[in-house]
Amino acid sequence: MSMKILSKTLITVIEEELKKQVARLDEPHTQLYYEMLTYHMGWTGKDASEKVTGKRIRPLLVLLAASASGGDWQKVLPAAAAIELIHNFSLLHDDIQDNSETRRGRPTAWTIWGVAQAINAGDGMFILANMAMGDLAKDHPNETVLKGERIFQEACLNLTRGQHLDIDYEKRTNIDVADYWKMIGGKTATLIAASLELGALFGGANADLRLAYRDFGHYLGLAFQVQDDILGIWGDEAITGKSAASDLLEGKKSLPVLFGLEKGGGFAKRWQQGTLTEAEVPQLAKMLELEGARQMAQQAADQMTDLSLNALRQADPQGKAGDELFALAKRLLNRDA
Amino acid sequence: MSMKILSKTLITVIEEELKKQVARLDEPHTQLYYEMLTYHMGWTGKDASEKVTGKRIRPLLVLLAASASGGDWQKVLPAAAAIELIHNFSLLHDDIQDNSETRRGRPTAWTIWGVAQAINAGDGMFILANMAMGDLAKDHPNETVLKGERIFQEACLNLTRGQHLDIDYEKRTNIDVADYWKMIGGKTATLIAASLELGALFGGANADLRLAYRDFGHYLGLAFQVQDDILGIWGDEAITGKSAASDLLEGKKSLPVLFGLEKGGGFAKRWQQGTLTEAEVPQLAKMLELEGARQMAQQAADQMTDLSLNALRQADPQGKAGDELFALAKRLLNRDA
Repeated sequence: MSMKILSKTLITVIEEELKKQVARLDEPHTQLYYEMLTYHMGWTGKDASEKVTGKRIRPLLVLLAASASGGDWQKVLPAAAAIELIHNFSLLHDDIQDNSETRRGRPTAWTIWGVAQAINAGDGMFILANMAMGDLAKDHPNETVLKGERIFQEACLNLTRGQHLDIDYEKRTNIDVADYWKMIGGKTATLIAASLELGALFGGANADLRLAYRDFGHYLGLAFQVQDDILGIWGDEAITGKSAASDLLEGKKSLPVLFGLEKGGGFAKRWQQGTLTEAEVPQLAKMLELEGARQMAQQAADQMTDLSLNALRQADPQGKAGDELFALAKRLLNRDA
Repeated sequence: MSMKILSKTLITVIEEELKKQVARLDEPHTQLYYEMLTYHMGWTGKDASEKVTGKRIRPLLVLLAASASGGDWQKVLPAAAAIELIHNFSLLHDDIQDNSETRRGRPTAWTIWGVAQAINAGDGMFILANMAMGDLAKDHPNETVLKGERIFQEACLNLTRGQHLDIDYEKRTNIDVADYWKMIGGKTATLIAASLELGALFGGANADLRLAYRDFGHYLGLAFQVQDDILGIWGDEAITGKSAASDLLEGKKSLPVLFGLEKGGGFAKRWQQGTLTEAEVPQLAKMLELEGARQMAQQAADQMTDLSLNALRQADPQGKAGDELFALAKRLLNRDA
């Protein structure tokens, strides 16, 4: 995947800012605590490298939106760091909640230091994110900082609303498509929407443009998640890096599955009889496709993609950052020309 | 225990403010999430009553400090709520981390809804606390709100530092008295210190008085914890409501135990051989006392108590709230006349 020039610079600077923010815990008697966070961020420990840090897409969106709104991205770095720290707070807790033993090919924090310490490490990551937001007062009026914090906190609360629903849905059998949108609206879209909105706010966009940026992020998040759901069932293993159709094996109630269940055909009948075996998966994926679920999901993804790109056009992003925002969005949405 | 007139009023109003803050989650599709929080707060579910809400000491300290600094406590209610929500966030996660099945006689949240949901409920409580802090902008200058938030976030980070050490110490055998002070400085004292400092800040105290209030809270927290440690070994079951000497049975590295271990006498020898049995506990408690640990711990508690009350005198609290602050401190420190 190609990345544009400005974005490459930003990714480097974001990493420095993140290191600075996390270094608040770099003290003699809490070295182990600090180590848990730097390990999770991909900077230290076994197999630490640029390959395991994650893509830092959200903070990149913050800075591009700030610059495309006419602002100085250097003065918005703490907001970018705050968003990425929140994302990583949620991953730390998510790994415990999902009982996931690896992330990006490395053992998760709780498998190394135990559940108790990993909960606490996530809490710490969350607090560091809040502290980063406070740093914005250095370069922005107090009123703007407080407004940004409100946007930020609301996004965090939405994130936990989505997480609550996600955990709850695992046990429930009566989930429908409407429930799905509520869940991913919180779990996936809210933080991406907040990334764009904060970038625009601290970049100096007016209220209308700021909300257009937010909508862009919201639909970008939804479209991206639906794409991910499609790949999770029909994706090429070589592209996704995970076993194709693994979502079916895990029993994940993703959008295509919910379409299939609403349809009530052969797929639904088999699904309701209990966990699929690995051998059945290709056949069930095919059945689900024949029943129209793939097409319906693709239509939903296309619709969200259109809404997203329309909102971005409305936001009218300027300059090189504007070009890179469009390019990044299209890349994330598989709309590369 | 008697409570003064103003404090009684404040406790009632604090509860209303807390309910208002938590109601941010009172929405149709997150009722279960909301229920987890109201259950933990003692408002709903099995055996919900005033007896299980906790004493709300921290928010009371916030409001008394605000009023005793010449401020209007009604305008400081969101800070009081924020402090109590943070306290309850830490309890929700603490119960998971310690594997505690009951709190105040009721099943803990994780035993009812599972670890995954209880982690998320704690995260939500934390975010609600941050949102409450933002509400202070209604009645206070933006600059003061941002300053208050910095104090608040620093206290939260310290809380997790203390929690980190507490979890870490459980496994380690080489803990000494210096480690102990670091741990309870974060885990117990920091939030009480922040309660007083925030009350003073939003009550309009100048910087000197504000720091005196903070010191009062810091030493109050330390003294209270050491008292609790003493009661945990030599307390009267009738007073503490828990089995006397239960800390010894649990192997808790409290201050008297650490004194005993540094002494290296008969107590230390037995302790190092492994978990005590219930039958041994009275004898070991006696041995620890004869080796001087109880007296040393009491001296430490007395010293912290003196430092606390001296700082409160320096803070020069005014009016009825000032009187009640002294009375509350003495009650908490067992220095009732």
